[in-house]
Amino acid sequence: MSNMVMVGGVPVGGNNRITVQTMATVKTERVDECAEELNACVDAGADIVRVAVRDEADASALKTLAEKVRAPIVADIHFDYRLALRSAENGAAKIRINPGNIGGKREIKAVSDCLKQYGIPVRAGANSGSIEKEFLDKYGRSAEALAESALRSARCFEEFGVENIVLSAKASDAETTVKAYRILRARCDYPLHLGVTEAGGGRYGIIKGAVGIGSLLMDGIGDTVRVSLTAPPIEEVRAAVEILRAAGKRKDFAEVISCPTCGRCDYDVIGLSEKIRKATENTHKRIKIAVMGCVVNGVGEGREADVGIAGGKDKCVIFRGGEAVRTVPAGEAETELMKEVELWLTKN
Amino acid sequence: MSNMVMVGGVPVGGNNRITVQTMATVKTERVDECAEELNACVDAGADIVRVAVRDEADASALKTLAEKVRAPIVADIHFDYRLALRSAENGAAKIRINPGNIGGKREIKAVSDCLKQYGIPVRAGANSGSIEKEFLDKYGRSAEALAESALRSARCFEEFGVENIVLSAKASDAETTVKAYRILRARCDYPLHLGVTEAGGGRYGIIKGAVGIGSLLMDGIGDTVRVSLTAPPIEEVRAAVEILRAAGKRKDFAEVISCPTCGRCDYDVIGLSEKIRKATENTHKRIKIAVMGCVVNGVGEGREADVGIAGGKDKCVIFRGGEAVRTVPAGEAETELMKEVELWLTKN
Repeated sequence: MSNMVMVGGVPVGGNNRITVQTMATVKTERVDECAEELNACVDAGADIVRVAVRDEADASALKTLAEKVRAPIVADIHFDYRLALRSAENGAAKIRINPGNIGGKREIKAVSDCLKQYGIPVRAGANSGSIEKEFLDKYGRSAEALAESALRSARCFEEFGVENIVLSAKASDAETTVKAYRILRARCDYPLHLGVTEAGGGRYGIIKGAVGIGSLLMDGIGDTVRVSLTAPPIEEVRAAVEILRAAGKRKDFAEVISCPTCGRCDYDVIGLSEKIRKATENTHKRIKIAVMGCVVNGVGEGREADVGIAGGKDKCVIFRGGEAVRTVPAGEAETELMKEVELWLTKN
Repeated sequence: MSNMVMVGGVPVGGNNRITVQTMATVKTERVDECAEELNACVDAGADIVRVAVRDEADASALKTLAEKVRAPIVADIHFDYRLALRSAENGAAKIRINPGNIGGKREIKAVSDCLKQYGIPVRAGANSGSIEKEFLDKYGRSAEALAESALRSARCFEEFGVENIVLSAKASDAETTVKAYRILRARCDYPLHLGVTEAGGGRYGIIKGAVGIGSLLMDGIGDTVRVSLTAPPIEEVRAAVEILRAAGKRKDFAEVISCPTCGRCDYDVIGLSEKIRKATENTHKRIKIAVMGCVVNGVGEGREADVGIAGGKDKCVIFRGGEAVRTVPAGEAETELMKEVELWLTKN
């Protein structure tokens, strides 16, 4: 089990629920717009949000932003360590900084003292683009080099007494990412921030995130996740939540399972399952709903679900707790299934 | 390493390339439409395709279908073992059948004899909906029960001398699926057909497939994959190909990595990376292209790529083999980057 740190009021690590993060694309100094973007992310499931602090204007904006955003804010700093101090002063709940690009020991000590003074954690770590030369020379461009570089960045802060560290080691491919985090998990107890960096956009970006982050989650590795997508941050949050669900780390939702449809299918399974998914997307109770196209898999798989339907050309069978309860005309499939779902939700 | 079987001219298992499968939604007897649907899947990357054989009309249609489709065809049979015999006669390259629902030993022997006569493999296995009662009683609804049920289904054919078996053990959740296949890999040498069954539709279905199948691929488990989606089969193929790429099992393509954009970004990274992705989607050479929004990650990550760009408000830097080669006006970013990509592809 990893150590636990607090990011504002949100625990990260230990046995706590795995949290979802994202990062604003709107510039921090444009406070209202930025708050709007981030609060939409919070509503979609983000637990912690991050903003780039490029200059004094951004650092000052943090104060108002922290009041407006309904989640703790991480300040992302590069190059100028003084922006970290100003961000902490202005309400940042965590600092993301790469000790390799803010100068030397003096600067790292100043940031460390500030972290301890405000009692806030730091995310250290490395990306495949920021691996230190020493490790590149020693291990080549590999998971070992990435993990060692991440551990080194943590040691920079440890040296000055910082204990609240979250660690990351993101590569731009899922394979290297998974290997690097496995090394980190074996070699330290810091909570791990999972992500595949620069994953790209569209479906492939989501798949890369799901393969990389999902593999680690399945093995019990990871305390907080960010899906990096070249897309609006709310899309990152939606994908992250679904990866957590798919990996079995979130249970409180309506899971619609439905068959892939084949030449046996006599009705519109795609349409019906989509409607049921929409109708139940705000359910925060664990319920499994099966929408099946025929009896071949319908009956068996339907049994696994809390509520289900197996369709035919004219009639559909409604299942409850694995038992067929009644037959309904195909035209009433949606209404009847939703009736059954409501009933289950009321009773459970 | 798993055993190898041949599905028509396509090897599955051993050290061979992991293959992609899907299943027609058009009814098999509608030969022309079905062939059209499946050939589009082949063009998108399907190596092997499957059709439901519900009756004699479907079984007869296989003959013409096998001539029209540019990939070996798997016949999916339930309940009536005679349809398996007719499908083999009519050119099926593999039979998918559940020995549990076609009768007793006599029927299984008839199918086994036919498989040996035509020299074609069978896919045995279990879905979470078809776990045998004996194992449900012994292990509960678990990965162990699913894996044992799959192994039992293989033994039904082994008993009659069938050696060319592909095995599957699909659950409707990624966790159980991953555990079940890990058990199978430890206990047998059959090539494994990976999939999460009834995954559902939309992004969540893709994520479930990516987490489940991806986790196994990352650990070297899996010989052929099918992503089950409540969506047209071509979408299953696209997702499967991208899961293989994300898991590092396919290398011959243009991988566009791009930053997730943040408050540091001064130009349209999302738009540019999307354009570059579109322009390179038919590239069958391994090339890594980086589209980065700023210098913070741009320079470092750009180094990992074969060709890249790091943008700014007015000017962008073009990278080649990790070195900055020239600065171009932001308005010419796309043209200049594609020029560099073409150059790289010509030279490599």
